[in-house]
Amino acid sequence: MGTDPISLQLAIARLHARYAHALDADRLEEWPQFFTENGRYRITTAENEGRGLPLAVLYAEGRAMMRDRIQSLRHANIYEPQRYRHMISAVLLEPVDTSVVRSIANFVVVRIMQGGEATLFASGRYVDRVLIREMQYEERVVICDSRRFDTLLAIPL
Amino acid sequence: MGTDPISLQLAIARLHARYAHALDADRLEEWPQFFTENGRYRITTAENEGRGLPLAVLYAEGRAMMRDRIQSLRHANIYEPQRYRHMISAVLLEPVDTSVVRSIANFVVVRIMQGGEATLFASGRYVDRVLIREMQYEERVVICDSRRFDTLLAIPL
Amino acid sequence: MGTDPISLQLAIARLHARYAHALDADRLEEWPQFFTENGRYRITTAENEGRGLPLAVLYAEGRAMMRDRIQSLRHANIYEPQRYRHMISAVLLEPVDTSVVRSIANFVVVRIMQGGEATLFASGRYVDRVLIREMQYEERVVICDSRRFDTLLAIPL
Repeated sequence: MGTDPISLQLAIARLHARYAHALDADRLEEWPQFFTENGRYRITTAENEGRGLPLAVLYAEGRAMMRDRIQSLRHANIYEPQRYRHMISAVLLEPVDTSVVRSIANFVVVRIMQGGEATLFASGRYVDRVLIREMQYEERVVICDSRRFDTLLAIPL
Repeated sequence: MGTDPISLQLAIARLHARYAHALDADRLEEWPQFFTENGRYRITTAENEGRGLPLAVLYAEGRAMMRDRIQSLRHANIYEPQRYRHMISAVLLEPVDTSVVRSIANFVVVRIMQGGEATLFASGRYVDRVLIREMQYEERVVICDSRRFDTLLAIPL
Repeated sequence: MGTDPISLQLAIARLHARYAHALDADRLEEWPQFFTENGRYRITTAENEGRGLPLAVLYAEGRAMMRDRIQSLRHANIYEPQRYRHMISAVLLEPVDTSVVRSIANFVVVRIMQGGEATLFASGRYVDRVLIREMQYEERVVICDSRRFDTLLAIPL
């Protein structure tokens, strides 16, 4: 596909989809590859974001730091029998320049416990800067609606 | 983009997305602008719709009435610390004529209370008539699956 | 629309959307028509799928078997006042050959009881083989995140 608006919109939708499936399938080692080498990742709350507070629930800059994060998770060897299911909706694109596009999308993450109960784990917005040619996140900010974070600290959203 | 089927499908998806983000960001004053000057908005239940009952949980005809509705909400000055997150899915288009397209979409709205609990607030279908050139709703009917409406009466869906 | 990648992606999205709306509107008799004459349908769990177990919660091969299934459901005359709402997200296509495409998508199904309570009924992945020219499922595998199945056995997802 080309770089016309329609192809771009579908390419971004696929990027978000591949990201969601990687996390939901517990292929966390692939997570850093969705970002540029120096890509930034941040989880914050709508409350902090609204107040302009730079506080992040989770922050990673660069793939090396992201790989460390995933290794720690794996070595912590926490027994985590739950599954996650990411739903993405309402994707909006805003061109930044010829090489970067801004993407805003709504998300809901469902958590399924070992016993089978499913709960609304997190909801909010992804606010992304995407490198068009590479189809990678230069920045992904996850703005959660809720202030509640329990195991949220454990895995990337 | 043009008016070919692909461009139209993506344009409608963006319209629904902008609508969702405006409501979720509490930019309610923008709500009437998604409609034509005489646009109609109606919230009803699947039960009433199935029985052909014209009862509406909320009804507004024309932007002026919508603006009044939002002003009332703002002046009522109700302390509403909850957030909403709209998810839209399964969009289907049916051409009506050269200037109007019918859109059907599934939706789920998650409500996040101040304490952080997230609940399924509403689910159902949007059945819309969209003016193609203006990309505005001539009519938006929100058919909710549940008969339960508490604060649903307060804000547009 | 043609068979270029963009048209195909949107055609598959519409197929999934029509399927969802048919089930949500209780038009179960239309369900077999989304499949090829010998199409296969299977509901399984992520746990079984991960272990390579061929166990299926529900299995149907061919439209005749699907029609039988729906007839049994209708004749069982079970009073089922609940509604379902399907949300589909994160659709990814992988070409198989010139006539078949593989589609992976996330889903969440919300169940709305007669009293009005809405719950997360099921979540998981659709893994499909779609005949491109016919726009029908040659195979639809529904991989549920949870092992819990109560009335799940009753209706197709």
